Amino acid sequence: MEFLTGVKEKETLEISRLLEDGMLGRTVKVNGAVHAVRDMGTVAFIILRKREGLIQCVYEEGKADFDVKGVHEAQTVEVTGVLQESEKAPNGVEITLSSLQILSEPKEALPLAISKWKLNTSLEAKLNYRPVALRNIKERAKFKIQEGIVRAFRDFLYQEGFTEIHTPKIGEKGAEGGSNVFKLDYFHRPAVLAQSPQFYKQMMVGVFDRVFETGPVFRAEKHNTKRHLNEYTSLDFEMGYIDSFEDIMAMETAFLQYMMRLLKEDYAKELEILNVTLPDVTRIPAVRFDEVKRLVSEKYNRKIRNPFDLEPEEEHLIGQYAKEEWGSDFVFVTYYPSKKRPFYAMDDPEDERYTLSFDLLFRGLEITTGGQRIHDYDMLTAKLEKRGMSPEGMETYLDTFKHGMPPHGGLGIGMERLTMQLLGEENVRETTLFPRDLSRLTP
Amino acid sequence: MEFLTGVKEKETLEISRLLEDGMLGRTVKVNGAVHAVRDMGTVAFIILRKREGLIQCVYEEGKADFDVKGVHEAQTVEVTGVLQESEKAPNGVEITLSSLQILSEPKEALPLAISKWKLNTSLEAKLNYRPVALRNIKERAKFKIQEGIVRAFRDFLYQEGFTEIHTPKIGEKGAEGGSNVFKLDYFHRPAVLAQSPQFYKQMMVGVFDRVFETGPVFRAEKHNTKRHLNEYTSLDFEMGYIDSFEDIMAMETAFLQYMMRLLKEDYAKELEILNVTLPDVTRIPAVRFDEVKRLVSEKYNRKIRNPFDLEPEEEHLIGQYAKEEWGSDFVFVTYYPSKKRPFYAMDDPEDERYTLSFDLLFRGLEITTGGQRIHDYDMLTAKLEKRGMSPEGMETYLDTFKHGMPPHGGLGIGMERLTMQLLGEENVRETTLFPRDLSRLTP
Repeated sequence: MEFLTGVKEKETLEISRLLEDGMLGRTVKVNGAVHAVRDMGTVAFIILRKREGLIQCVYEEGKADFDVKGVHEAQTVEVTGVLQESEKAPNGVEITLSSLQILSEPKEALPLAISKWKLNTSLEAKLNYRPVALRNIKERAKFKIQEGIVRAFRDFLYQEGFTEIHTPKIGEKGAEGGSNVFKLDYFHRPAVLAQSPQFYKQMMVGVFDRVFETGPVFRAEKHNTKRHLNEYTSLDFEMGYIDSFEDIMAMETAFLQYMMRLLKEDYAKELEILNVTLPDVTRIPAVRFDEVKRLVSEKYNRKIRNPFDLEPEEEHLIGQYAKEEWGSDFVFVTYYPSKKRPFYAMDDPEDERYTLSFDLLFRGLEITTGGQRIHDYDMLTAKLEKRGMSPEGMETYLDTFKHGMPPHGGLGIGMERLTMQLLGEENVRETTLFPRDLSRLTP
Repeated sequence: MEFLTGVKEKETLEISRLLEDGMLGRTVKVNGAVHAVRDMGTVAFIILRKREGLIQCVYEEGKADFDVKGVHEAQTVEVTGVLQESEKAPNGVEITLSSLQILSEPKEALPLAISKWKLNTSLEAKLNYRPVALRNIKERAKFKIQEGIVRAFRDFLYQEGFTEIHTPKIGEKGAEGGSNVFKLDYFHRPAVLAQSPQFYKQMMVGVFDRVFETGPVFRAEKHNTKRHLNEYTSLDFEMGYIDSFEDIMAMETAFLQYMMRLLKEDYAKELEILNVTLPDVTRIPAVRFDEVKRLVSEKYNRKIRNPFDLEPEEEHLIGQYAKEEWGSDFVFVTYYPSKKRPFYAMDDPEDERYTLSFDLLFRGLEITTGGQRIHDYDMLTAKLEKRGMSPEGMETYLDTFKHGMPPHGGLGIGMERLTMQLLGEENVRETTLFPRDLSRLTP
């Protein structure tokens, strides 16, 4: 028997520790993966990849007790040497090696040249060799930024009095309707995977007033586009006691402001690696659906084909319009047509063809859908009936409204899409660790 | 067109704001759900439920401009009145009402007496009426504590240089083997739900060195016990460059220390509501599997039936032993038999019948399984073969080891079980928002 008392300090150091004052000239121990080896004869550079970045090690013949011929890409090693200043090395330091110990050996050469600054290969290859491709510095930086986005979402909402919830992903058949659900067998009962935590977060508004969840959602949609995934991570919140759906847009604006600040402070290195300039979110314009369709149609000489729908092309032009006219990368499009919204969306009492809801477009792509929900039982069941929908499978959800619910609303943000737009990527798979689409179920 | 600039301050105040200095004697506006009404004739007490707790409002005939007869449980309201000191009221304050506006009306009486301090009903009823039952102050406090646990897990790991990842829950058939998987149809291809993020987090160790994920996992196990769920939230981490599996136990110990501190600081109110005393985690004993079986067998006069298995009863006794002999609510049981561990577990080179792995028991219940993994391709495939398993569906996972992986290991913590044990609950469903078990697929 022995006792564990917590994390003991290791002899091996991380990069941030190496960069502290007083470390230059000291003998240090570092571990990492061999990212690249440049052998120039009597001198060789061994670049190690660590979680905080790259560190250059210099092998000089006669100074080290190992043979550099035995060092190659994708080994993991532990090295000892003296830390020196070096203008051209990453972070301005390098280690003059005295010894090197191999921790593990690869079995085969890497299928991709990951040590190149830009991974020069197809998206298809990047996805097929995902665990290797992501070792590229630029590739992995994308997912560090993604971490920052999710972290900002949670930290901001904690601060605003939201409670985090964990709701089930397997549910009763038919709960949310629609044909785009994955079906499964749950101990000989038909079940489906959740398309969103919508019903659960609404039910939980009656408990905690304000709730959020960051988790997977599943959509069995059959389109194979650059912006659709069949499984993605949804950043969801729902808040009670709102005065109008403007409160929800205000909360999202404040989240984006918080997010940009956090990224700037804690993810500056990754922003630089990816050459990303953060957009200004001091103020985000909000414009009515019908109004912005008219504005875009006028400015870009485009005929309105369907007054109750937005085509992808139109979304793109709204983004362009917002940038040109209001200087914003983001734009809230409000009062979406009722036909395009689920039954629980609250209709505008002044014109029931529209709802008290919104989409947020970021550079011409929808990244959020949100709005006020119906909180009155009779109104909710009447709308359900009017749509010819059956309450089957929604009993507990509907009953919640019998038992009193405050005026409330919320939103869902697609994590991968937000990352994609922030980084200026062209395909959402670029910002998805292991994408699931019509043809891709692995890795 | 208008601009959104962030969250505007509301006229209605939250409880923490009411408790600030200088608020007593002021006219305040507050909203909330009517938790209880006690009508004493000329005076009535209206208790509002808000996210931060309860607030008492006093109605005195002649002082208010509304009729208290119209106020009843489960309405949501907005009230105005003067904030006064009141020794017996929650938080020592109450509001003497001048007006009350009804925001929403319930349609039916509540099925449970949620305003009672302890919800006096069966677990079955609590689960059937989940959205109502959770409005009980004690019930909802459990899930606030659960939030704190997950928050501590993430915040601690960020601080320790871990990167958060989001891995797919739908995967290729057969990837992890075992019969306990939920199967689904993925666009006419057989697919399964992830039993754990194991393969993905290992693959990502090659990218970020240290990674974690908090997300749902799915187990199609057919036992209906007090401690099993078919869907639960797993707190997973995986770390590279370990010296031994002790590093993982050390990290978990430090997490538990961090968690207890965070709960004490930020969730003191909920700990008090639930009357929970946090266990001491200054040091956690670690003892070998075979050794602790012997110790327990000797102390409690219990015959060892199977030297390579732990029965639930034995787990319970190990917990008791750790408490009695080492004064600890937690105990790491190390060197689990190889037969009881998956193929990727690293065997002890000194005795291959055992693995370099552990379980963490908390008050006699397993809440964590962890250990060192095999990082050598040949060793991994040899073990796979020895077990008669097919590499089918694991190609990308296995290939990762061809391309170099550091020595690594990790663990998975069952969120609901950890909450259950911390709160002293008898059934894991008590600490699961919407449990999924053999018979329960809804709500």
